[in-house]
Amino acid sequence: MLTVNPPKRFLFGPGPTQVADRVYDAMRQPIVGHLDPYFFEVVQDIQKGLRTAYGTANDFTMAISGTGSAGMEAAITNFAEPGSKFLVFNAGYFADRMCDMGARHGAQVVRADKPWGEWFTDEEVREIILREQPATVGFVHAETSTGVLQDGTAICKAAHEIGALVIADCVTSLGALHIGVDEMGIDIAYSCTQKGMSCPPGLSPITVSPRAMDRLRARTSTPDIWYLDLKLLDTYYGQAHRYHHTAPITTFYALKEGLALMNEEGLDNRIARHLDMHKKFVAGVEALGLKMNVPDPSRRIPNLNTVVIPEGVDDLATRKQLLNEYGIEISGGFGPLAGKIFRVGIMGPLATEEKLAFFFDAFKKVLGK
Amino acid sequence: MLTVNPPKRFLFGPGPTQVADRVYDAMRQPIVGHLDPYFFEVVQDIQKGLRTAYGTANDFTMAISGTGSAGMEAAITNFAEPGSKFLVFNAGYFADRMCDMGARHGAQVVRADKPWGEWFTDEEVREIILREQPATVGFVHAETSTGVLQDGTAICKAAHEIGALVIADCVTSLGALHIGVDEMGIDIAYSCTQKGMSCPPGLSPITVSPRAMDRLRARTSTPDIWYLDLKLLDTYYGQAHRYHHTAPITTFYALKEGLALMNEEGLDNRIARHLDMHKKFVAGVEALGLKMNVPDPSRRIPNLNTVVIPEGVDDLATRKQLLNEYGIEISGGFGPLAGKIFRVGIMGPLATEEKLAFFFDAFKKVLGK
Repeated sequence: MLTVNPPKRFLFGPGPTQVADRVYDAMRQPIVGHLDPYFFEVVQDIQKGLRTAYGTANDFTMAISGTGSAGMEAAITNFAEPGSKFLVFNAGYFADRMCDMGARHGAQVVRADKPWGEWFTDEEVREIILREQPATVGFVHAETSTGVLQDGTAICKAAHEIGALVIADCVTSLGALHIGVDEMGIDIAYSCTQKGMSCPPGLSPITVSPRAMDRLRARTSTPDIWYLDLKLLDTYYGQAHRYHHTAPITTFYALKEGLALMNEEGLDNRIARHLDMHKKFVAGVEALGLKMNVPDPSRRIPNLNTVVIPEGVDDLATRKQLLNEYGIEISGGFGPLAGKIFRVGIMGPLATEEKLAFFFDAFKKVLGK
Repeated sequence: MLTVNPPKRFLFGPGPTQVADRVYDAMRQPIVGHLDPYFFEVVQDIQKGLRTAYGTANDFTMAISGTGSAGMEAAITNFAEPGSKFLVFNAGYFADRMCDMGARHGAQVVRADKPWGEWFTDEEVREIILREQPATVGFVHAETSTGVLQDGTAICKAAHEIGALVIADCVTSLGALHIGVDEMGIDIAYSCTQKGMSCPPGLSPITVSPRAMDRLRARTSTPDIWYLDLKLLDTYYGQAHRYHHTAPITTFYALKEGLALMNEEGLDNRIARHLDMHKKFVAGVEALGLKMNVPDPSRRIPNLNTVVIPEGVDDLATRKQLLNEYGIEISGGFGPLAGKIFRVGIMGPLATEEKLAFFFDAFKKVLGK
């Protein structure tokens, strides 16, 4: 008898989020070897699907065999070289983690700091980039810790003027909102599978521009992480099909199926659905007399909503009650936002009017409204 | 309609190997959040099961969110410190990879080299360790590239006499043969899920002795890999339950179920079954007039057999025919053993008389015997 017997959850947190049934069915399929011709068919389908989701023609588009954080570290160990200047626009937890990783890998990290929950204007990023003259710039497209969306267009433009590469954290944006990697000018983007892609966690989709690949190929030092060395990974997933590590086959099946679902719905329709549900969520929150944490609607991440916890409401008790009585998971804030916000993801199979109604019904009861 | 539609394979290679049906059923179960109380129950069950499989009482026993190679790199980045001497007993591909990783992370790597397929005697390891006085010693318990089993007892004894830690690669041994981490004296052992554990790839079980944990806690420099920093991982999987990364929930379900299956069969019975099938495999191979690559039976890995390819037999064509006509995957050799050996895993659900008969029936036909 099966020993795994999880409680039924409605994953309204920032991730992992609800997984589509067809993705689970895909994971039930028997594995093949990591060098099997069928596995490389799956890899190619994933590459094609990810190019659509990211909005890129980048040849080097693949999935790293680790979670989103492994994708972040892959970007940094390969592109923020030891001794080189790595500028990070930092207004939240995940940008801060980029700085931590950059320092570990020996880059000269320069932080452009703002309080958590703020963002950088086009003028600010331009001025800082031109002044600092970094080799690599990092920013977080959708900062999950604060709910803020940071447009990267001006960052990429200024960075390219001085020959710098741009790394974008798209962990929360991929699959749920428009990124447009090529249009924005991002050189390296990484993400995860358990948010906008509606798959379980375990892989980190990554895409690298030809310009960044040129710099990587010209790099003389070896990245310190063997497991995340993109030149080695290219010999595995690329034409050579040379053994590197044993890819997590089942998790690749899941991502292939998740991308197929996205393709069937149509990326634009999917993005529109998430935006529509976001607007309805905000309306619902405001109808309860609550406030969104990001005041400017155009700066909000549509699929990850941060709501100010009103006076007198206990963060932990509220979340516990939602989980225990309704099976609903939402998250709290952390760092300077601990106890101050709820983080509510409306994504994938839960981004429907019916599920939103279910959420608000429970949320109201727990808040005593 | 499901787009994932893999061909049916019999995974008789070194790994990934055949997955038990119940493990697939476990992966079909809905995920919970990475900080959900149920997830930590799963983590605890996994820790308990891994302690049994490894033969250890180590408190720090967990699964790394990456494949076996990530486990190797976790061991090295945490325990082969920059500038310190890291001695590796090297007679195969995976020991060679340990050296590569050690150098990337700044350790002073000292290689004790032998030709692929050989092993080190008790006298040799003792002499080398006492002469080199390393801070950390690495060896591969079951060298998948050659089929050789390297006993680590003398390595651990000599290393501990000089205060060195021992890292053991148990990627191919865990779950299929006796390791006895505490009995042998191993300080850090890592493995994978897709060989002796009969699960899909995706996690790397790791265990660390209290002595090694003391050295890690006393370490003043930060390991260069954030994703694999064991002190950070300890705050996630340990009592604090502090967010580090989003663990691949489904892959944890798989490992929990795989360990439950092992527990139901009994580890000793499971080891005996693999040994029994190994002996029958060797008898079958010899009956065909073929030779095992490792001459001494006591030095063979029971669950991973290396067979010398006889004169006139085409490596690639044979493997292609087995795959295409019978759905049977076996592997070839690589490095100096490319084209010279077949690598045949008899593990988990395929380690039965019936499956062995099925294998030999196809193997004979393809060899024209």
